[in-house]
Amino acid sequence: ATGSGRLSGAERDPARLVTFSDAVFAIAVTLLILQIRPPQDTRDLLHGLTSLWPSYLAYAVTFLLIGQMWVNHHVMFDHIRAVDRLVLFLNTVLLMVIAFLPFASSVLAAAFESGHGRQSAVVFYGIAFEAVAALFNVIWEYVRRGRHLLQQAVDTDDLSAIGRRYRLALVWIAVGTALGILHPVAGVVVIAAFIPAYWLPIGGEASSAGRVRDRGPTPP
Amino acid sequence: ATGSGRLSGAERDPARLVTFSDAVFAIAVTLLILQIRPPQDTRDLLHGLTSLWPSYLAYAVTFLLIGQMWVNHHVMFDHIRAVDRLVLFLNTVLLMVIAFLPFASSVLAAAFESGHGRQSAVVFYGIAFEAVAALFNVIWEYVRRGRHLLQQAVDTDDLSAIGRRYRLALVWIAVGTALGILHPVAGVVVIAAFIPAYWLPIGGEASSAGRVRDRGPTPP
Amino acid sequence: ATGSGRLSGAERDPARLVTFSDAVFAIAVTLLILQIRPPQDTRDLLHGLTSLWPSYLAYAVTFLLIGQMWVNHHVMFDHIRAVDRLVLFLNTVLLMVIAFLPFASSVLAAAFESGHGRQSAVVFYGIAFEAVAALFNVIWEYVRRGRHLLQQAVDTDDLSAIGRRYRLALVWIAVGTALGILHPVAGVVVIAAFIPAYWLPIGGEASSAGRVRDRGPTPP
Amino acid sequence: ATGSGRLSGAERDPARLVTFSDAVFAIAVTLLILQIRPPQDTRDLLHGLTSLWPSYLAYAVTFLLIGQMWVNHHVMFDHIRAVDRLVLFLNTVLLMVIAFLPFASSVLAAAFESGHGRQSAVVFYGIAFEAVAALFNVIWEYVRRGRHLLQQAVDTDDLSAIGRRYRLALVWIAVGTALGILHPVAGVVVIAAFIPAYWLPIGGEASSAGRVRDRGPTPP
Repeated sequence: ATGSGRLSGAERDPARLVTFSDAVFAIAVTLLILQIRPPQDTRDLLHGLTSLWPSYLAYAVTFLLIGQMWVNHHVMFDHIRAVDRLVLFLNTVLLMVIAFLPFASSVLAAAFESGHGRQSAVVFYGIAFEAVAALFNVIWEYVRRGRHLLQQAVDTDDLSAIGRRYRLALVWIAVGTALGILHPVAGVVVIAAFIPAYWLPIGGEASSAGRVRDRGPTPP
Repeated sequence: ATGSGRLSGAERDPARLVTFSDAVFAIAVTLLILQIRPPQDTRDLLHGLTSLWPSYLAYAVTFLLIGQMWVNHHVMFDHIRAVDRLVLFLNTVLLMVIAFLPFASSVLAAAFESGHGRQSAVVFYGIAFEAVAALFNVIWEYVRRGRHLLQQAVDTDDLSAIGRRYRLALVWIAVGTALGILHPVAGVVVIAAFIPAYWLPIGGEASSAGRVRDRGPTPP
Repeated sequence: ATGSGRLSGAERDPARLVTFSDAVFAIAVTLLILQIRPPQDTRDLLHGLTSLWPSYLAYAVTFLLIGQMWVNHHVMFDHIRAVDRLVLFLNTVLLMVIAFLPFASSVLAAAFESGHGRQSAVVFYGIAFEAVAALFNVIWEYVRRGRHLLQQAVDTDDLSAIGRRYRLALVWIAVGTALGILHPVAGVVVIAAFIPAYWLPIGGEASSAGRVRDRGPTPP
Repeated sequence: ATGSGRLSGAERDPARLVTFSDAVFAIAVTLLILQIRPPQDTRDLLHGLTSLWPSYLAYAVTFLLIGQMWVNHHVMFDHIRAVDRLVLFLNTVLLMVIAFLPFASSVLAAAFESGHGRQSAVVFYGIAFEAVAALFNVIWEYVRRGRHLLQQAVDTDDLSAIGRRYRLALVWIAVGTALGILHPVAGVVVIAAFIPAYWLPIGGEASSAGRVRDRGPTPP
């Protein structure tokens, strides 16, 4: 409601959209654990627990990737002053795909545990993340072109840097997914390698003060 | 708590009700994914994943419908200044039906996957959504007549436009549900067609400035 | 953080406790639906869906009872200015019991669906709710006696009225639970009858302005 | 967004991080109940319900431990003025481990119900909590050394007291986990004993006004 007086008829304050999205992100990551079932046979529990390693790995990779998306969702909406019905709709579709990721994650884990269908599982997993990356790009391009939905004080270089990041994600995940057809393990490694790459600062962004916002700290 | 000084004894600020409702909406949409079980047999995973198409479809349709309801819940409570015990109760019943929708969605998906009981499933699904639409209408009519629960600055045309939208939902879902008895696929298509119809602007609303708030933007 | 300057060392602003509690209430009610499994056999889906009636009933009764507790939790914390470690602990135990209710609800539904163990199930269900009622009473009595944790402007009659309500819940649920040993259906009916009784205004409360806050509106 | 003008490029207001973390804590504790399955055989329901005692116990211990972590997470972020990318990342890893705890809890319960694999289960459970304690220590030490991320008004003794508490948790859980190899029940008892120890005031903290904030109240 804050500042809604400055908004024209079709526009809304993004505060509630962000809160709602945060909730979906938080629930999606926490539901990931429900996809891991405790070993039925507790007679050799240690073996049962260690044989679940693909589930733990899929859990960790998916959790950290969704965590990254959450951070990026905030970076995006920090620059947005108002949302219209189309942004509201596109964001709902984005949340729909994010809430789908626990399913893709469990498919991946099941394939690596059984040793069957690993190619299909990696491609399925990659496509789900590619859809997220695509929606980030679509929302950002729409908002950038519309301009009137953006905060007034934003820096053009800043906007470009964010756009480059989102396009990078699109290419990176696509490469990992394609590689998964040839070599499932390599595909997963490429997709998982996106996690450290994204948390570290990207060289080209350092020249602009506005872009500094995205840089990580130098470790202590 | 904000502004509670202006409220009489039996009335409460709707802020917490809205936050609580948002949480239930967010959890309900995110729980939808738990209704889709990964294929047990991973030997032909690609086939297993594609044969789940009714689940994906039910997931998408239900997610987007609940997303719409969330938007409409906000539109409604943007006009409400205070809630009394009856609104609190009716809203709890509304949330009860919304939290029920993941179950209805999984019944629909299971029927289309097995090919049996599709009529019953579509009618069951339709009735659940019809109950949501009915509760929106009941709450809105009660608040409109009571008047003292509304924001002071609201436009009468605006209130009527919202009421018309809620009545439209009631009729639309009823038609889809009834059609589902004769032809299950047609019934689902009609109910799903409610999604684009609701996100697009409705002609008759454009004449009033107050109504503009509900219009979608013209695509870029 | 707001107003924390007015709090002494061991005291904390209840805002975050309330937000956290709201989240647990919202998740608990929404998880209720996961306890209802779609019929496995879709060949006679209509029969399968109707035979789940005890699940629907347990779902509705438990949802509305938890919804009531949520309202009462807010009424309680509206009167509380600060929480100390003991209130924090007791509230955590309260939430622990509330998050347990979906399990008790599914035990109740399973017993009525199978026709076996209905006495045990009703008593189990009643004891869970009795524990909630007891914790409400303990927290409220502790806060009332401590006094320094209460808002300064509270009316003593108001505090007494809330205390009476909580004690009423304690007795009511105990009667329903005990009755469940003799006659399971009667026990459930008494516990469920608590829902309308609690949403309607209670006669004795009407004489004080402070108590009016809890009264429901007269229907239109 | 509040106060973001005072933050340098790489820093962010922790408000959203705290809200997001609260949601994950709330969902994690509430999901615990899904790990308890109602008895399949309702013919001797009373026996079925009582034989689930390890599940109830694991539920209660894990709920109260996560509740404690939630309180401690707040105590930590009350002292933090700004977060950088590393804190954001470490907090995401912390939440990842917390969301994992319902799984560890169900492994523990299953082992005690079957009587097999109790050693493995206790060690598994202990390691999960040890990871949480380690992450609390890492985040706190990083923030304390960085200093610029802390609130300006913080008391050095206060910071040390919090650090001591986090190190105590590290040692305590490690002892319980190691003991679990020799004697599973003793291991669980030591880990569970952390609950009252943590809610009660710690003697050495009472001398400083700043530390008083963590003290529990004297019972009425």
